[in-house]
Amino acid sequence: MNKTRLEAFSDGVFAIIITIMVLEIRIPTGAGWDVLQPLIPTIISYILSFIFVGIYWGNHHHMLHAVKKVSSGIIWANMSLLFCLSLIPFATGWMGENHFATNTVIVYSILLLLCGITYTILQLTIQRCTPMSPKMKIAFSNMRKKGIISVICYSSAIPLAYINTIISGLLFFLVSIIWIIPDKGIEHAIEE
Amino acid sequence: MNKTRLEAFSDGVFAIIITIMVLEIRIPTGAGWDVLQPLIPTIISYILSFIFVGIYWGNHHHMLHAVKKVSSGIIWANMSLLFCLSLIPFATGWMGENHFATNTVIVYSILLLLCGITYTILQLTIQRCTPMSPKMKIAFSNMRKKGIISVICYSSAIPLAYINTIISGLLFFLVSIIWIIPDKGIEHAIEE
Amino acid sequence: MNKTRLEAFSDGVFAIIITIMVLEIRIPTGAGWDVLQPLIPTIISYILSFIFVGIYWGNHHHMLHAVKKVSSGIIWANMSLLFCLSLIPFATGWMGENHFATNTVIVYSILLLLCGITYTILQLTIQRCTPMSPKMKIAFSNMRKKGIISVICYSSAIPLAYINTIISGLLFFLVSIIWIIPDKGIEHAIEE
Amino acid sequence: MNKTRLEAFSDGVFAIIITIMVLEIRIPTGAGWDVLQPLIPTIISYILSFIFVGIYWGNHHHMLHAVKKVSSGIIWANMSLLFCLSLIPFATGWMGENHFATNTVIVYSILLLLCGITYTILQLTIQRCTPMSPKMKIAFSNMRKKGIISVICYSSAIPLAYINTIISGLLFFLVSIIWIIPDKGIEHAIEE
Repeated sequence: MNKTRLEAFSDGVFAIIITIMVLEIRIPTGAGWDVLQPLIPTIISYILSFIFVGIYWGNHHHMLHAVKKVSSGIIWANMSLLFCLSLIPFATGWMGENHFATNTVIVYSILLLLCGITYTILQLTIQRCTPMSPKMKIAFSNMRKKGIISVICYSSAIPLAYINTIISGLLFFLVSIIWIIPDKGIEHAIEE
Repeated sequence: MNKTRLEAFSDGVFAIIITIMVLEIRIPTGAGWDVLQPLIPTIISYILSFIFVGIYWGNHHHMLHAVKKVSSGIIWANMSLLFCLSLIPFATGWMGENHFATNTVIVYSILLLLCGITYTILQLTIQRCTPMSPKMKIAFSNMRKKGIISVICYSSAIPLAYINTIISGLLFFLVSIIWIIPDKGIEHAIEE
Repeated sequence: MNKTRLEAFSDGVFAIIITIMVLEIRIPTGAGWDVLQPLIPTIISYILSFIFVGIYWGNHHHMLHAVKKVSSGIIWANMSLLFCLSLIPFATGWMGENHFATNTVIVYSILLLLCGITYTILQLTIQRCTPMSPKMKIAFSNMRKKGIISVICYSSAIPLAYINTIISGLLFFLVSIIWIIPDKGIEHAIEE
Repeated sequence: MNKTRLEAFSDGVFAIIITIMVLEIRIPTGAGWDVLQPLIPTIISYILSFIFVGIYWGNHHHMLHAVKKVSSGIIWANMSLLFCLSLIPFATGWMGENHFATNTVIVYSILLLLCGITYTILQLTIQRCTPMSPKMKIAFSNMRKKGIISVICYSSAIPLAYINTIISGLLFFLVSIIWIIPDKGIEHAIEE
């Protein structure tokens, strides 16, 4: 199985997901400033999701770098991740249009949790069928730790949204900080 | 004719088809749990189609691997397959919105049948103009058998939808099981 | 300038144009057979445009094959072609929804005419800045002849739509027949 | 970090942005010439944005050519640029539908200004982490000058829109003229 084509397909899906979200920002009727105001939450939720999908793209890219041979397991773990990510535009739009109402934040958290879980599954699948140098093992183990923290944060964001959706928002922010810089470890390990 | 560009174009179309389907899941008005419930059949039909398009992508990829020289015949057989696949988002949305009503399942079955037929045509076109090792011949013959079973299942799903759409659903499920693991035979044959 | 990236970008735009057209086939309300009937002209116009964009993609691909060095002229001639092609989903949808009414067929003919003209401009731009073997010159000259015939057909389709839109449709059909098999001449010339 | 994949992802996003704008040209009801007339401003604003995104694509492509090693800084500067560009379809549609009303032109100018700023940030980020020949330095310095002129033009277009939106339009036109021919300097510098 050709890695290039898996990357090309994934890149295509990532590019489309990140761009079609903007279609959820409906063009308002009228040219006054007042018609833009109700769009602010939609734009904020768009920014949030743009960052998340961007982070996934960056890390996905780094992780696939390590892959030597694409197995059926990797294809389907990758498909599951892409499936979860493909639902982000929907959850983003629903959350934005309803001004971050509790239920919408919960659905968004659940979706991010599913993305985190499928990402971890993809990582484990890659780990299982790729021979790894000790450095790479450390890099993958760091990534797994980040994954576990993310899953804990997302899981906590679900009940905490009932108390205050801002807490959930802060947890999303925390996770994005952890991941925003793709792990250099993998890069260094591959270069060696 | 450059195989890379045929693959790139096909990958682009596959990526777009699989992602724009999500645009058919319209964002509901209101933030209650009750507004999500009517979306459940839409999401189920989305999952089903995501798996189908994913399977087609995986197998398409494997099959193109065998191609040495891209002829006009391959281009147009490929175009026909992409055309049929491009109608899947429509059929998926219609089936989901109408909660798997008989007519919508029939249209969906017909479309899958057309996809199956055009896929088989593409396969035969590739087979005719590609020199093949005995191993590859076996792999292609296995794929043809799968193709015939699929076409039989889809054809049966059409009248059976009048009795019970769940039977059609089970047939779809059966076909996806057959195809979900891309045939390793082709890969092994190419590697040799 | 990197030819690969020009091809990748063009392929992306082609793939998106050919796929988003399907979004113009709106999902009807209700699950009866009767709701599908008004969609027939939309689907016919979709098929027509799918074939046209497919033909452009195939020939564009062949033509770019000859390019050695990408100049600014080629970039902007290519952009003009992509711009005209990007309006096809709109014209297709308008024509389909209005059951091939005279005005919509005229707009569609004008658009195809513009696509034909920008394609010819792209061809001339490539010709001017690419060194060519005698065989390639013949291939390009054949393509230019096809281009002139197409432009004549499209131009005639405009006034003839006032008499009968079926005549315009036949002219479209005629042009697609001319182009459907990409010129082998270029391929052979490049191979030498 | 793999430059090819960064280019592929960016090309995908560029291709999608430039093409989904056309979805904002809604298909009118009815087949008379009169229903097309209200679309004229929408089409003009589409042409304008198509040219702008096309220019960004061309220059982005040239600039990335110089990159040797993709750092996290480059990834995120690139993401910021793509984010700003992804909002162009929205601003284009709003401006077109409201016939270039003052407010909409201001929002459009602000967006172009943000695109210009993020483009300059991306340029500076690339400059900082890429070893450069003297020729390349001159090319990048020319590009920076163009960037500064653009930012001044866009900034002026904001208050000037209150006087007359046509002045803003002329400034947009001026900027596009400056950039429409990608700087050959970078190309020549790389070739050496």
